[in-house]
Formats: sequence, C-alpha cells, structure tokens
Amino acid sequence: MIITKPTLLVNEKIARTNIRTMAQKAKKAGVLFRPHMKTHQSAEVGAWYKEEGVDKITVSSVDMAIYFAKHGFDDITIAFPYNWLEASQIEALAQKVKLNVLIESAESLEHLATHVRTKLNYFIKVDIGTRRTGINPNNPKLIHSLAKSTNPDHQLVGLLGHAGHSYQTMDKKKAQKILKESQKAFVKVVAELGRTDLIISYGDTPTCSLLDDFPGINEIRPGNFVFYDLMQYGFGSCEFKDIAVCMACPVVAIHHNRKEIVVYGGSVHFSKDHINVGGKRNYGLVVNLDESGWEPSDNSYMSKLSQEHGIISASKEFLNSVKVGDVLGVIPIHSCLTADVNGYFYTLDGQFIPMREKR
Amino acid sequence: MIITKPTLLVNEKIARTNIRTMAQKAKKAGVLFRPHMKTHQSAEVGAWYKEEGVDKITVSSVDMAIYFAKHGFDDITIAFPYNWLEASQIEALAQKVKLNVLIESAESLEHLATHVRTKLNYFIKVDIGTRRTGINPNNPKLIHSLAKSTNPDHQLVGLLGHAGHSYQTMDKKKAQKILKESQKAFVKVVAELGRTDLIISYGDTPTCSLLDDFPGINEIRPGNFVFYDLMQYGFGSCEFKDIAVCMACPVVAIHHNRKEIVVYGGSVHFSKDHINVGGKRNYGLVVNLDESGWEPSDNSYMSKLSQEHGIISASKEFLNSVKVGDVLGVIPIHSCLTADVNGYFYTLDGQFIPMREKR
Repeated sequence: MIITKPTLLVNEKIARTNIRTMAQKAKKAGVLFRPHMKTHQSAEVGAWYKEEGVDKITVSSVDMAIYFAKHGFDDITIAFPYNWLEASQIEALAQKVKLNVLIESAESLEHLATHVRTKLNYFIKVDIGTRRTGINPNNPKLIHSLAKSTNPDHQLVGLLGHAGHSYQTMDKKKAQKILKESQKAFVKVVAELGRTDLIISYGDTPTCSLLDDFPGINEIRPGNFVFYDLMQYGFGSCEFKDIAVCMACPVVAIHHNRKEIVVYGGSVHFSKDHINVGGKRNYGLVVNLDESGWEPSDNSYMSKLSQEHGIISASKEFLNSVKVGDVLGVIPIHSCLTADVNGYFYTLDGQFIPMREKR
Repeated sequence: MIITKPTLLVNEKIARTNIRTMAQKAKKAGVLFRPHMKTHQSAEVGAWYKEEGVDKITVSSVDMAIYFAKHGFDDITIAFPYNWLEASQIEALAQKVKLNVLIESAESLEHLATHVRTKLNYFIKVDIGTRRTGINPNNPKLIHSLAKSTNPDHQLVGLLGHAGHSYQTMDKKKAQKILKESQKAFVKVVAELGRTDLIISYGDTPTCSLLDDFPGINEIRPGNFVFYDLMQYGFGSCEFKDIAVCMACPVVAIHHNRKEIVVYGGSVHFSKDHINVGGKRNYGLVVNLDESGWEPSDNSYMSKLSQEHGIISASKEFLNSVKVGDVLGVIPIHSCLTADVNGYFYTLDGQFIPMREKR
C-alpha cells in the first residue's frame, strides 16, 4: 500500500493471535470471554473475534451496542452506567438482542423499570477499587435496593467490576493482589444479596493479560489487549511483539541542530495521551517500519504533538538515517484513543478497516 | 433540541461575533485576515466567515484544503510543511484554486519543482521562536537556497511564522514582545533576500486576540479565536463570554461521599488536553446550561476522563443541585481537539453542523 498521510496500521496476524490467546486462556480458566469492543469499534475486527468463537461482547455506549447489533452480535453488555436519556434507544435495542445494562442506584433501576418496557438483564456495577463509579460493596442498604426491579422483565443477573486501578506498572503478583481485592468486593455483595447464581464479571487488560486463573470470576471483559500499545507494554501487560498497531507518518522536515524530525502526524492522529519516560513526555516510540511490519529501533520518540505536527526527538544515528519524504513508524501510547481519533485503519496488506461512524 | 448523549454545542452568535471582531480588527490594522479553519473544519462555519467578507483561508492539511476548495474557497494556504507524498493531490488542487504551500528546505523546494507541475505560490516557513519547525532566520545559506524555484511556475510570495510560544499566560505586553521578536526574525530574512514585496504572514490566537496593531505584518492567521476555550481563557486571550463552545453531558451517577458526579462524556468527546489549576488536572469547567446558552457556575470541574466516563469534582452546593438524568454543561479545554474528536456539533437552536469527514 502507498502511504501519503498519517495512517494507522494494524498487524492483523498479531491482533488475531492476541484474540486467540485470550480466548484460549478464558476457556482453560473456565470463564466466559466477553471482550470489550471499544478499542477497535469495528465490525471487521469483530469478525476476527467471531472466528475464535466469541459471540458475547462488551461495549461502552448505546451507540456502540447498536452498531455491533447491526453487525451480527446479539448478546451485548453496555459496560457504562444506564443513561436515562437513552431509554428509548435501549428499549428498541433490547427488543432485538439480548442486552445487559449496568445499574448502580435505586433511582436508575426505577427509571429503567418504568422507561424501558421490554425484557433485559442488568448487572450491579461494583466499585472494586478504581473509585471511578459503581456501588460501594460496604453499603448493604444500597445493595438491597438494587436486588430486584419493580419491572418483572428486568432481571438482576450479575455483578460487574472494572479494575481500572491496574493501569500502572504491573507484574503477576500485583495483578493477583488486585484480582483478590476485587473478589473480596464481589463476595461481600453476593453475601449481602444471598445469591450464588450471579455472574461475576471482571475486566481490564493488565490483569487479564498477566493472570491465567480467575478464581471466583465467571467472565472477563478485556478490550485493549487486541492491539495493546506502548502504555500497556510499559505496564508489563504484553511483550513488544504483541503490539498490533503502529502509526505511519511522513517526514516533512528535519532539524539537525536540535536532533528533531517533524512528521505529519499530530494530536488528531495520535490523541494526546502520553507516558513519562525519564521525566520526559513521550507520545509514541519510533520503530523501523517495512512492508511486513515493524521492529524496535532505538530510543527515538515523539516528544511533542500539535494538531497535525509531531516532533520526534531522535538519536544521532536515527536522525542521520532519515530523509524528508520517508515514512516513519510510531507505536502509539494508547491504541483505543488513537484508533478513535482516526476513525479507520489499514491492515498491513492494505485492507481498509472502517470504524463505527460517530454521527 | 433534545440531548441524549455527549453533544458539542456552539453558540453561533458568539462565534459570529468573534469572527466579526477579528475581521474588523484586521481591517482597521491594515492586514489581510486569512483565518485558520482547523478549529471547526466545517463548511457551514466557513460560510459565517464568508458573510464577514473572508475569502482567503488557512488550513493545516492537504485534505482540509481539498474539503474547503469543494466548499467554495479558492485561495488557500496550507500552513504545514510541504509533504512530498501528497505531491499529486497538491498538483490536482493547485489546478483548481490559488494555492500557497510552505517550504523550509532546499530539498523540498526542488521536490515541489519537479513533482508539482502547475502554478502555485510558496511561503518560506520561518521559525519565529516556537522551535517547532521552520527555518532559522540566522541561516543565510538556507535562506538563499529557498529564494527561487527551478520551476518558473512556483513563486516565492512571502514568509510565514506561527507564534506557538504564545500559548501561555499572556497579557498585552507579553504579546507585544512576541510580535516584536517575530518581526525581527522576519526582517532578517527579508534583508537577506533583498525583497520588500514579500507577504509577512503571522498567526496564533493569543497575540492576535490581545493586540490591535501589527506593524511589519501583512496578514494574520488566527484559528482558535472563533470558538476560544478554557485554555485560551486561561492565557488571557478572551473573556469568558467569548467562549463559543460547550459540551452537554448527561449525568449517569453521583458519588456524594467523594463529591463526584459521573457524566457520559469522556476522552473520545473532550480529547485528553487539560490544564493545571492549583496543582490539579482540569479537563473542563462545569457551567450552568440552559436553552439560551451557559453561564459560569462555581468551581466544579472535570477532574478525570476515561474513554466514555467523565468525573466531575463538584462543590457541595453544585453536587446537591444535580440529579441523575440531568444534562451538565462543560467548557472544554481545547476547542480544536474537542471539535475534532466529535466530528460534528450543534448550534444552540439545534442546527446540525457536520465537520470534514476524516476517511
């Protein structure tokens, strides 16, 4: 394929391997694999999951649920607190597919009961340590208020938690600790409700990548693992060879005096997420790109981003190897946001992969 | 209009006033107004400029130039270093409209000469202090190598600089200093080339907003001023009443114990740009939203963002005034990126404004 502008490349082989690895791990561990589709937001990549036997998915918005329902998925969890203002869209969707929503307050449960007049299941969103949202497992009054809907069509089927606090430098031991703490939170709620039939749904890429066993858990919902990225590599979630995405950026100027390369590729192509390496902001790592993929280079990295410009802080060797008109590979920091800002990507063999349209 | 999900609202009246104010200022100062379209990327907003007499524009990519050419603009500067890999797209476009490109190396000038076989004008991109890209005005050898193309169809018409280093807390005095330093850089290049007919093109929202006179400058290219945002307000570029954009976000959960409100509205709606206020990350300021627009509230602000969740750190008063199902207004930090990640917006009277499609 001919690259003329910033282009998000996906190594399909790596992405499919990542899917297969996670699917097999879940099977071996005896947990349901309900992957999160927010990273790619694409029916084409959804089909790669189907080939690995995945037929139940997670999404983070009603719009995303509608999109994947249109593309053949009929068992969907919207892993986001029930949004009252989308009640009619949820009702329409729940008439077509098996839909699970998240509830974390009595008001929301009652609103759902009276505004979504169709069969659906709900999970109680439990805060398992992230402190983003979800119920406090030490709040029995709240727990009991969520046990049963006044609408007989709405069934509580499980508890759902997201270990967002695993987004840090991790190892197996730390991951086990986070899982154990999550289990304790779930167990508290289960004990309070006195129900042993509830599905315990747990997610996040770092711990699901690092662990092989998930005692006390019934389903896992990682998302980012399909592509991984520099942040996940930094956390220890994956090896470098597991990263399936790379931005290809044309070189438009070179500044030898300050060892900088200016590429066409800015915040509208990468997003503004960054990591800190040695006290310096890093918006992406430069790699050697060729038709079969990419290989690690040296420590040249993207140090600044404006809307369309990317500034590479280059090693002397790398700087001397580059000419205006070349195309550089840059591994993005956060593949979910990088994919989202682009709206499409290409496989290495030039297949155009559209993502869900936002409008 | 009925808001059901995160929605970027534009107060058309404020945006039109911002355009008119800048257009009148340019006229009074005797400089050409060539506004940058990157903030809104929309033909509809382009039409608001046309009504103020604007017929020459700036864009930051070839794709954006093609889009605005399709929508009736026929004099366009691509304020981004010439990208060799888009030579054929540039050639096709330059056959239809009056096109200006930026050159900052002899190699790029020669590539343009031999690969774009049609009439066009070029500006030398001068680094006036930002250190992002552009030529060093103290490099006479480089300056002379850019004075003339080997292609007689390619004419040097001016010098162009972007004062990106004005993106900081500013006042009139600081802005004057930046303009003065920019002038010095331009004068050096002009003296070296021995040409007094060159267009001196200068841009950025902070200094163009703060200053009324632009001695030594022939055209100004601000972009963000059409909408402004919380960052520009913080810089001192505008008053709060000049901000023309606000995100409307549904409330989905409330956590009284930690005084947090969870809204539907995350990094895919706001972008990840933030400012620091009192040592704390701020991704947006909460305002009181009604059908006629928004008014300042208290200091409740968006303190965390994940892909679809926004976390508002709320004052006690604000927290007590909010219910799940409400819609909150949040002024974004950086309107260019917020618009870009959304891909569309609405005026307050419910007019849908599509932006340029990325694919």
